[in-house]
Amino acid sequence: MSVEKAVEVLDRIFNAKSIAVVGASSDPTKFGYMTLDSIIRGGYEGRIYPVNPRGGEILGLRAYQSLGEVPERPELVVIIVPAQYVPNVTREAAEKGAQGAVILSAGFREAGRADLEAEIQSISQTYGIRLIGPNIQGINYLPNKLCAMFFPVITTKGPMAIITQSGSATAALSEWAAYEGLGISAAINLGNQVDLCESDYIDFFSADMHTKVIALYLEGIRDGRQFLESAARAARQKPIAILKSGRTLTGQRAVSSHTGSLAGSHEVFSSACRQFGIISTNDIETLYDCAKALGTMREPRGNRLLSISSSGGMGTLAVDEAESLGLAVPSLPEEFVEELKGCDLSPLASLSNPLDLANISAEDFRKVALLADGFNIADIILLNFGDPVAGAPEMVEYLAGNIKASVAVSYLGGGEEEKVGRIKIQKGGVPVFPTPERAIRGIAAVVEYARYRENRTEQPREIVLHNRKRGGLEAEDRRFLLEPEGIEYLRSYQIPYPDHGLAHSEEEAVDIAGRLGYPVVLKVVSADVPHKTDVNGVAVGLEGGDQVAAHFKRIHEEVKRALTEASVEGVLVCRQAPEGLDVIVGALDDPVFGPTVMFGLGGIFTEVLGDVTFRIAPLERHDAEEMVREIRGYPLLAGVRGRQGYDTEQLTELLMSVSRMVIERPEIRELDLNPVRLFERGLMALDVRVIKGHSFDQEDEGGAPANRRS
Amino acid sequence: MSVEKAVEVLDRIFNAKSIAVVGASSDPTKFGYMTLDSIIRGGYEGRIYPVNPRGGEILGLRAYQSLGEVPERPELVVIIVPAQYVPNVTREAAEKGAQGAVILSAGFREAGRADLEAEIQSISQTYGIRLIGPNIQGINYLPNKLCAMFFPVITTKGPMAIITQSGSATAALSEWAAYEGLGISAAINLGNQVDLCESDYIDFFSADMHTKVIALYLEGIRDGRQFLESAARAARQKPIAILKSGRTLTGQRAVSSHTGSLAGSHEVFSSACRQFGIISTNDIETLYDCAKALGTMREPRGNRLLSISSSGGMGTLAVDEAESLGLAVPSLPEEFVEELKGCDLSPLASLSNPLDLANISAEDFRKVALLADGFNIADIILLNFGDPVAGAPEMVEYLAGNIKASVAVSYLGGGEEEKVGRIKIQKGGVPVFPTPERAIRGIAAVVEYARYRENRTEQPREIVLHNRKRGGLEAEDRRFLLEPEGIEYLRSYQIPYPDHGLAHSEEEAVDIAGRLGYPVVLKVVSADVPHKTDVNGVAVGLEGGDQVAAHFKRIHEEVKRALTEASVEGVLVCRQAPEGLDVIVGALDDPVFGPTVMFGLGGIFTEVLGDVTFRIAPLERHDAEEMVREIRGYPLLAGVRGRQGYDTEQLTELLMSVSRMVIERPEIRELDLNPVRLFERGLMALDVRVIKGHSFDQEDEGGAPANRRS
Repeated sequence: MSVEKAVEVLDRIFNAKSIAVVGASSDPTKFGYMTLDSIIRGGYEGRIYPVNPRGGEILGLRAYQSLGEVPERPELVVIIVPAQYVPNVTREAAEKGAQGAVILSAGFREAGRADLEAEIQSISQTYGIRLIGPNIQGINYLPNKLCAMFFPVITTKGPMAIITQSGSATAALSEWAAYEGLGISAAINLGNQVDLCESDYIDFFSADMHTKVIALYLEGIRDGRQFLESAARAARQKPIAILKSGRTLTGQRAVSSHTGSLAGSHEVFSSACRQFGIISTNDIETLYDCAKALGTMREPRGNRLLSISSSGGMGTLAVDEAESLGLAVPSLPEEFVEELKGCDLSPLASLSNPLDLANISAEDFRKVALLADGFNIADIILLNFGDPVAGAPEMVEYLAGNIKASVAVSYLGGGEEEKVGRIKIQKGGVPVFPTPERAIRGIAAVVEYARYRENRTEQPREIVLHNRKRGGLEAEDRRFLLEPEGIEYLRSYQIPYPDHGLAHSEEEAVDIAGRLGYPVVLKVVSADVPHKTDVNGVAVGLEGGDQVAAHFKRIHEEVKRALTEASVEGVLVCRQAPEGLDVIVGALDDPVFGPTVMFGLGGIFTEVLGDVTFRIAPLERHDAEEMVREIRGYPLLAGVRGRQGYDTEQLTELLMSVSRMVIERPEIRELDLNPVRLFERGLMALDVRVIKGHSFDQEDEGGAPANRRS
Repeated sequence: MSVEKAVEVLDRIFNAKSIAVVGASSDPTKFGYMTLDSIIRGGYEGRIYPVNPRGGEILGLRAYQSLGEVPERPELVVIIVPAQYVPNVTREAAEKGAQGAVILSAGFREAGRADLEAEIQSISQTYGIRLIGPNIQGINYLPNKLCAMFFPVITTKGPMAIITQSGSATAALSEWAAYEGLGISAAINLGNQVDLCESDYIDFFSADMHTKVIALYLEGIRDGRQFLESAARAARQKPIAILKSGRTLTGQRAVSSHTGSLAGSHEVFSSACRQFGIISTNDIETLYDCAKALGTMREPRGNRLLSISSSGGMGTLAVDEAESLGLAVPSLPEEFVEELKGCDLSPLASLSNPLDLANISAEDFRKVALLADGFNIADIILLNFGDPVAGAPEMVEYLAGNIKASVAVSYLGGGEEEKVGRIKIQKGGVPVFPTPERAIRGIAAVVEYARYRENRTEQPREIVLHNRKRGGLEAEDRRFLLEPEGIEYLRSYQIPYPDHGLAHSEEEAVDIAGRLGYPVVLKVVSADVPHKTDVNGVAVGLEGGDQVAAHFKRIHEEVKRALTEASVEGVLVCRQAPEGLDVIVGALDDPVFGPTVMFGLGGIFTEVLGDVTFRIAPLERHDAEEMVREIRGYPLLAGVRGRQGYDTEQLTELLMSVSRMVIERPEIRELDLNPVRLFERGLMALDVRVIKGHSFDQEDEGGAPANRRS
């Protein structure tokens, strides 16, 4: 039996018409009871076969003493037996002909039993049975009313598919969605991912017609490039919102101890999300809000927001947040305001944006939103209720069906009217948020996603580096190249470097300097000196032969004093570059995403403010352009307040060249061009540092990391 | 009758034993009905006298045809009649002997009837009757079960007093508090504040024993210094959390058009909050969360957080947020971990911080928290529930009473168990948050407040500038001083400036330069040249007499070319300062808070990154020290990565001097020392710009601004 394509097998697992539950129990404190109970309470309409060695009856169903006894080939087997029995049960399931199994049991890698995991992995490969889990809370797929999850039982169907590495996150997101009337299409825990993994689920839900948005909570990523490729492909079809924990150092420490998967820095992660159209969030509530907005709002044509409120205060809070998130809050054109004046609104209404009706009337909201839409005032209209608004659900439903703008609702301070109304509105398909600011955060996600889709018209990218060896580099394998070796790399990629020559004696140095023209710079070249400035191995601004000779001598002496055993290959003599703006361009082999390009302003901007950005290589041109524009210090590049601007076009080219270099030269572990000096026209790398390293085949890194249920 | 002290009269208003409701109505759609109904439903136990010209019976109570008919002197009169009748009713109330009136009616300044407002203000002054409102949703004071507010009726008593400029904010905050079991002590709308204003309410609730925290939502501030003085005084007693709308430009526009009160910049506002111990927030949900934490948590002794969770994922989210907000997340000492190992926890428990029990057991939480407290691991323990935790309320109550650390709870993913449990826990006095991140934001506010109280041991400050004229400056009144005049100010405050002389001829310039020593700088001095560099009126790095003479001539020519009519007083010749780090120190007359000191790093840091900070003058030494430390670029001042540090002590002195200057010299509207050059030891202002202006008496600005109900 061959290993089937993940999407197809997931389709059969989720839509199984018969399930066996191995480990079903009649003890209500056991997961085996809770899970069977969930399946029943979830309203599953297929055939259910509890399996328990004791037989008898469980929860009103006949229990079978073994899988063999089950009277048909179950399409899915749910396994909730102690870990040591899981391999046998998995084999039995495969032999019975099941195509998939969901293993809820814990006690594998996370408990020091990687061997058991390897065993079921090998069974999966041998028999072709595909596995979800182990060590998970379960799966819930509402189109098939299949809730094989010990907690919680969610039956409110809606647009959101939830994929998480935490049972609590699954429970929280799906409960919130159920309570609010949003609902979910599915919920799944990742667990230890011995077989099917995050990318497979993304692929499945990307194709699933019942799912309109994918909400992800991750602690680590099993295969960064596979993940991005799946996510980027999915983002063509439908939005993905993500929360990845481990933002801070301690957070990362916690993640490492939990999942064993090595997390790269959060900055690289969030840059990768921007690059591939994934909406990245920083807390679980915002993840939920963004997913809700993305799953329900019509894609807006632009970023112009109009807030219409019954309360001036709530309108102001909405535009405060909107402007801080980069939405446009247009002023109202005079003709529109004139028309509004004929609309019999309250004389106290404030006819600006935010527009305050100063009246609690659903009809006023309706009139004004319709008129605004006719005037094409905004791409998104926020109906901003700060009071009990009678008739709100019907009005919102009408507007959603009759205006071009995308609609969202914020509702607070509305007492009982609100409690009932907000669920009705949400069930009608328009997202309701509990505060204006949370509504705006959701809207901003929708705008960001729409913008991404608009700008990404080329084919989906394939970024998995097949046959690429990487990872697992030990400190002793690293070797930094000498500057002249680094310069060779630059030359191959047409990256400008100052004119130079390598001198082995004072006379030769003076000679070279004379040929290059003054001023010149001297730099020691030694395999024993990783940081030239640490040993005073550099001299700048040298104006004549005497200075060159003196500093040549000084550098040799200082290096010898600092490192008595150091061998010195020579001294590089470079023509000194003209003044300009210094930036840093670099590349690294990220442990999660592989070759990654970095860019930032030089000196204090990087050191003090951490104002850097990343993109996963290979870059497309718009990636490089975005990098240049998105650092906070961009105004310095572009020229501000009469300051000179610099050659951002050549800078973009340089980023593309570095991207090509790290993709084509897998031996590069780290590259630092620091600084790159920008001029009004052109640029030059003034220093190059390359770290090479041995590579290991990706397969050698070991199988799936253990992702504890958490 | 004299105008009574606000706190005393508010005490009598809120604790009134009898109230007359003028405008009471039997029509359920009228505010006059809703308000009377609220008073009854709120459980008011005093005597209620509805007043309506038609008499009869309203809501089961005898209605009187006029205030005069009411059979006793009502301690409070609630007024809900059309605006034009309010002055008469107010006078009648005063004549009847009422000491206070709450005017809910709208239709005053916000509707173009400032005259009506002036009238009731004058009645208040004549008769001594104190007024709340007009144009408000009402007041709710729960210790007296007095809910004279047309919406909502909140009867869940708790620690939070709510003061807002928005009915929606009042409703939302009090409904949230009621739903969650937190409760409120009081809620009040500010409205147009014709008499009693935000500072009076702060003073009252600061003394009110039923209130443990004050939550404020403001759109503008009537009197910035009075507000700060009250708030800072209150902050000695109890915490104040605030949300001020108008963070962004459009937000401010909305506020201006709504309230007519001129808002200063948000940066000045939030700096002022930091200075005076007010917890400033950026959205209404965070305002609520912070107020909840501040009103219920025990003041922690430090900022060390321990997260104990049933879910690894939720623990990680907590520490992510904690670290990004500057809380400490200590590692666990080995002895503690050893003890934990004897506690019969799950073998899957993760014994680090965050501590994941990997088990859903209230008893495990109890054991571990007790042990951690014994080991003094943390100042705050977050009980981080990600599952249904049976017995949680009893366990939390036990811990809160038996450990030294401050306790907070995050609870999600807990289904029905959670719904019931979270209200019980909250009613037991421990704050419950719906996500780990929101819990951490609340905790961070509590830590910030505790730190403020610890650092502020001196007497509360009086910062109202009595007899100070200010404000209302028109453009044509402004006058910038010539640099030599500015230098005089510097001299009076012992602020160093380079040696210099004013030259009126080339010869004189060369002479002065010779005396000072080279290199020198030339600067044009002209009342017609507000920006010297705009007309090339500066020359730097001049190394000899020839250069000085040539540039003296050039400057004259260039200025004449740019501004043919310009009169040139002369050219300032200054000794050029040595290299150093340039910062900006300034002062401005903020429209809300008056004299304010500004500090930031020079050049791109200020221009591109807006990395500046403010303090309201007069500064105390710790204010100046905080300013220096709190800019993002502080590492540059302190010295990073082997870079040199600068004289932050002299910089602190300079900020104190500037503070003294702007307090003692009220004619200064703006002061710019840009740059101030810092050295390893010492500093120098290299340029001084003073703008003076006419002043108007504060009283001339007009009375209270209209703050619309919103």
